[in-house]
Amino acid sequence: MLITLNKSADPKEVQRRLYRLGLWSQALAPRTEGGAASLLVAPHSATIDPERIARVQGVAEVSVPKSPHPRVDELARRGHAINDQVSIGGDLPPVLMAGPCSVESEETAFESARIAKRAGAQIMRGGAFKPRTSPYSFQGAGREALGWLRAAADAEGLGVVTEVMSEHEVEAVGEVADLMQIGSRNMQNYALLRAVGQLHKPVLLKRGMAATIDEWLQAGEHCMAAGASVVIFCERGIHSFDPSTRNLLDLSAVALLRHAYGLPVVADPSHATGRKDLVVPLAHAALAAGAHGLLVEAHPDPAEALSDGPQALDPDQLIALGQKAFPS
Amino acid sequence: MLITLNKSADPKEVQRRLYRLGLWSQALAPRTEGGAASLLVAPHSATIDPERIARVQGVAEVSVPKSPHPRVDELARRGHAINDQVSIGGDLPPVLMAGPCSVESEETAFESARIAKRAGAQIMRGGAFKPRTSPYSFQGAGREALGWLRAAADAEGLGVVTEVMSEHEVEAVGEVADLMQIGSRNMQNYALLRAVGQLHKPVLLKRGMAATIDEWLQAGEHCMAAGASVVIFCERGIHSFDPSTRNLLDLSAVALLRHAYGLPVVADPSHATGRKDLVVPLAHAALAAGAHGLLVEAHPDPAEALSDGPQALDPDQLIALGQKAFPS
Amino acid sequence: MLITLNKSADPKEVQRRLYRLGLWSQALAPRTEGGAASLLVAPHSATIDPERIARVQGVAEVSVPKSPHPRVDELARRGHAINDQVSIGGDLPPVLMAGPCSVESEETAFESARIAKRAGAQIMRGGAFKPRTSPYSFQGAGREALGWLRAAADAEGLGVVTEVMSEHEVEAVGEVADLMQIGSRNMQNYALLRAVGQLHKPVLLKRGMAATIDEWLQAGEHCMAAGASVVIFCERGIHSFDPSTRNLLDLSAVALLRHAYGLPVVADPSHATGRKDLVVPLAHAALAAGAHGLLVEAHPDPAEALSDGPQALDPDQLIALGQKAFPS
Amino acid sequence: MLITLNKSADPKEVQRRLYRLGLWSQALAPRTEGGAASLLVAPHSATIDPERIARVQGVAEVSVPKSPHPRVDELARRGHAINDQVSIGGDLPPVLMAGPCSVESEETAFESARIAKRAGAQIMRGGAFKPRTSPYSFQGAGREALGWLRAAADAEGLGVVTEVMSEHEVEAVGEVADLMQIGSRNMQNYALLRAVGQLHKPVLLKRGMAATIDEWLQAGEHCMAAGASVVIFCERGIHSFDPSTRNLLDLSAVALLRHAYGLPVVADPSHATGRKDLVVPLAHAALAAGAHGLLVEAHPDPAEALSDGPQALDPDQLIALGQKAFPS
Repeated sequence: MLITLNKSADPKEVQRRLYRLGLWSQALAPRTEGGAASLLVAPHSATIDPERIARVQGVAEVSVPKSPHPRVDELARRGHAINDQVSIGGDLPPVLMAGPCSVESEETAFESARIAKRAGAQIMRGGAFKPRTSPYSFQGAGREALGWLRAAADAEGLGVVTEVMSEHEVEAVGEVADLMQIGSRNMQNYALLRAVGQLHKPVLLKRGMAATIDEWLQAGEHCMAAGASVVIFCERGIHSFDPSTRNLLDLSAVALLRHAYGLPVVADPSHATGRKDLVVPLAHAALAAGAHGLLVEAHPDPAEALSDGPQALDPDQLIALGQKAFPS
Repeated sequence: MLITLNKSADPKEVQRRLYRLGLWSQALAPRTEGGAASLLVAPHSATIDPERIARVQGVAEVSVPKSPHPRVDELARRGHAINDQVSIGGDLPPVLMAGPCSVESEETAFESARIAKRAGAQIMRGGAFKPRTSPYSFQGAGREALGWLRAAADAEGLGVVTEVMSEHEVEAVGEVADLMQIGSRNMQNYALLRAVGQLHKPVLLKRGMAATIDEWLQAGEHCMAAGASVVIFCERGIHSFDPSTRNLLDLSAVALLRHAYGLPVVADPSHATGRKDLVVPLAHAALAAGAHGLLVEAHPDPAEALSDGPQALDPDQLIALGQKAFPS
Repeated sequence: MLITLNKSADPKEVQRRLYRLGLWSQALAPRTEGGAASLLVAPHSATIDPERIARVQGVAEVSVPKSPHPRVDELARRGHAINDQVSIGGDLPPVLMAGPCSVESEETAFESARIAKRAGAQIMRGGAFKPRTSPYSFQGAGREALGWLRAAADAEGLGVVTEVMSEHEVEAVGEVADLMQIGSRNMQNYALLRAVGQLHKPVLLKRGMAATIDEWLQAGEHCMAAGASVVIFCERGIHSFDPSTRNLLDLSAVALLRHAYGLPVVADPSHATGRKDLVVPLAHAALAAGAHGLLVEAHPDPAEALSDGPQALDPDQLIALGQKAFPS
Repeated sequence: MLITLNKSADPKEVQRRLYRLGLWSQALAPRTEGGAASLLVAPHSATIDPERIARVQGVAEVSVPKSPHPRVDELARRGHAINDQVSIGGDLPPVLMAGPCSVESEETAFESARIAKRAGAQIMRGGAFKPRTSPYSFQGAGREALGWLRAAADAEGLGVVTEVMSEHEVEAVGEVADLMQIGSRNMQNYALLRAVGQLHKPVLLKRGMAATIDEWLQAGEHCMAAGASVVIFCERGIHSFDPSTRNLLDLSAVALLRHAYGLPVVADPSHATGRKDLVVPLAHAALAAGAHGLLVEAHPDPAEALSDGPQALDPDQLIALGQKAFPS
């Protein structure tokens, strides 16, 4: 954002007036004498309406770039339906989405759904197709698991969120999912974003491991431009230089999307930390930062999980979290 | 951590048993046949007592590196006195430390102390010596400000935390501060850590902008080895690739220090975000993640602040935060 | 890598012997007395054959994890054919791949090919499908451009490398490309990696913007497991906290892949820096670090480029680079 | 940098004209109709003289921020004397600075100097005071080592660069060093920068592990403002998310300082990589990127080094590097 000053204004004075609004700025001087000075507002400033800034004494004009994500911007500050029962965003109460990393069998699917329901979840999560770093790891049970997931969720009256990894599977996933999940590794897989958007369904878009907020919102714009009904942004940890957690859960990003931009945003503390002993405190922290909901991994028996067992909560841990943070 | 297996044990079976405890591991095979297999526990695993791991079926031995910070380890899971009135850590209620970025005059010091007190703070923060990126920025009011700070805090019955930047100022700062603050830029200024430790006082050690947790704890060990009575670790944001916040507040680190290591840890949401509109939600998030206290910047009139005005809360904002998060 | 010591060995002595080989290590002590000590070799150590380490005095056994990318490992230390004319890797001379960011018309394609040829390039690069952060930016000229690219390259006797972004376009791209490019945003788009691998052609795999070396090699393993004839790794800059360059060209990674692992690796200084004034020095630096080749963007008239004009070299700059670094 | 357009100019046309110069820009529209549009130049653009930009058709005015480091800017594009024999910067041939991590004894000092000389070094490096992550590691031989270092260097006609860590040691180090080294951990230890600057000697300023280029140059400004005769910037690797190298050598930064800003800059491939097997290729790469010199660790017998042995070149390796890259 650029603020052009009246010729008589003292840039330092105006900068100080902007401080009160939470704006950092850098003064720019014209190359030739007699031109107007201007102030360039730093990106880490508070988000303030340009009209309000224009009324600050000494300000002649405020110039802003065109938003690169106008359709995403329209999602701000209101709730959005995921299905007939569940809505999310705005000032609605937070939504718990819980379940196993991968849906391994019909039996564990039904057991996971029962546990999720008892914990107060409204949406069941679970992967049929799993993006795995190694081609030799378990890749998910595939299309069959989609059926188990839907049946288990229906038995408990839950919605379904599940990941789609391939353009060829968009239709099949779309038949069972209320909320189409795009994983962090595919955040900028634009062919997939477009194919998923064309279903006109809600999309859960995980942030890429090194994506800036702007890249993330523009990836959401790809979905919206293709026809998605809403994009719910999911922070799941970014790459950091510290190995003590698997990833670094960026709750500044959650606070920014919720409080500064008003966009629907949830957090996944399980993938972010990778460590069961930190999932619960970071789940509470995410909600305090403003998350509209949580994605949490839980497994009937983490020792038997075919993927990501060390970060899965066991049933008692999930129920305790749900009762504390999602009272019905 | 290294787990050596019984020769008859199946590494995959043991790995799955470790899942239940929250441990990720990598299997290592000996170069020659007939040797015992071993499992290397990943650093992003849950923190589990080696004795408990040794009892898992199939485990022959558990080997651990010697802790590089034994004196810091001894601080775990108990409270520590900052002065006669205030203690922090363990399961003690959180402590609010509030005040201006820099102590600019006697008058603003007293006004800031009154506001901090009304907000429920037990410690007043405020800088006499300011580390500034530019040599041409305001560098703090210096030694005179130390006196104003102490007098203002005393008038309200508050403790004092203030930063020391130079070995030559350690003594002067030590005369007024209850808690000696070492800034993030000096986290690995070992000469300063040693000089401050030699005062035998409590130290508040801010995390460096790219410091790993391990480097941070070892910096604390420098203080403890020199004689500090306690080190309170302060997360204040790390450098990230996203410009939307000034720094990235790493609440995983806060949760890790509190819940996995049991160490006294506080958070500074003001410097972390740099944006007034995110300070309050991230303050709540930090407490939910497990912070034993907060450092918050507030100024009687942010527009008049000589440094960091855009991130300072105004009096009403600070009092609202204090009443909600630090009820007395 | 884990080194188990003889019971009589002094860990500090053995550590010092390992220094000479370039190995950093951390000592691990068994929980119970009388067990053997071990040394855990740090990942940033020099790459040394375990057999050589086993001969160091005091060492009883060396244990290593199974490689997660065995098929990639087999590519090491030898050349690989891209097409009938061009081979890359091992100790072969470096290969220049040059051309425009996107293939905009038949005319510019032919002109670009002529320039690439004059500069000494053996492969022409150019995008028909462009991954763009915004859905509203130019997305490439599409399938028609594939034909222009092939015809232009053929006219000059050049090979073709071009990016494939969608599973639905794999076949069409495979018909014209000698080398199938997978972009950094799709490095972990496993559905695409598999589909491309199934063509049994050479793959150029760009590193993701926050991918660790290990994730990158495992992504290559996805291609190889699916049938790719070879994977050529391409460093193109990672996300960093500094805005002065668009990305940070990681030449340590290039040196590591070339000198420690022996794998075919090239660098793309154009996308890495985004700034024309740094492309040439970093191109030379990449070759000095060990790159087996370069991908360089050049355009007959950068001002008229529909994408990435500011980083494209003009014809004279490309020819000067080629003559200096790729003498025929 | 801000470019204000003529009212009749088409922003897209002007943006394309700027492409040819290597400038990326973002269009800003005024809030009210009829105002002039402007273009904000992205920081990762090529460095171009504002006067040249002002002559582009459609440009009305160019506004730039005041440089935050005017004294550093004055160092650009010319050579600077380190002592009576050695100068560095501008278009002068590169300078080799070599020696052990720490100066451990008089004997190894003299032996190291002989090796450095044979390799073509003009400056001997070696630490008397060592910043160590752990308080329990070897902290350097201290003041005594300063004498050994000076005597050894004098015996071979070499200059001396050595690190100063404490304000209390500035004078003692200043008595022996031609070039005062400030380590990366102290890059923003402003009290030390000031104290060192006041000696009016040349300073070698290592980049902090997460310092942006701008923070680094402003740290240099602290030295210059206090009186330093010249600041030579030293890139030594930044913190990254990949553990395969100890740090990530940022050669983009080297190229930027040399080619875009014209400032004296050297690289330290030893600390950057931590791995002996990558030091030599990255040394060559640093020179190709534009480094005015190298700091390289070498030890008469790396196995006997008291610190950082695994990254030290042995005498033969150093001499081979010197003969290839620093022919006299």
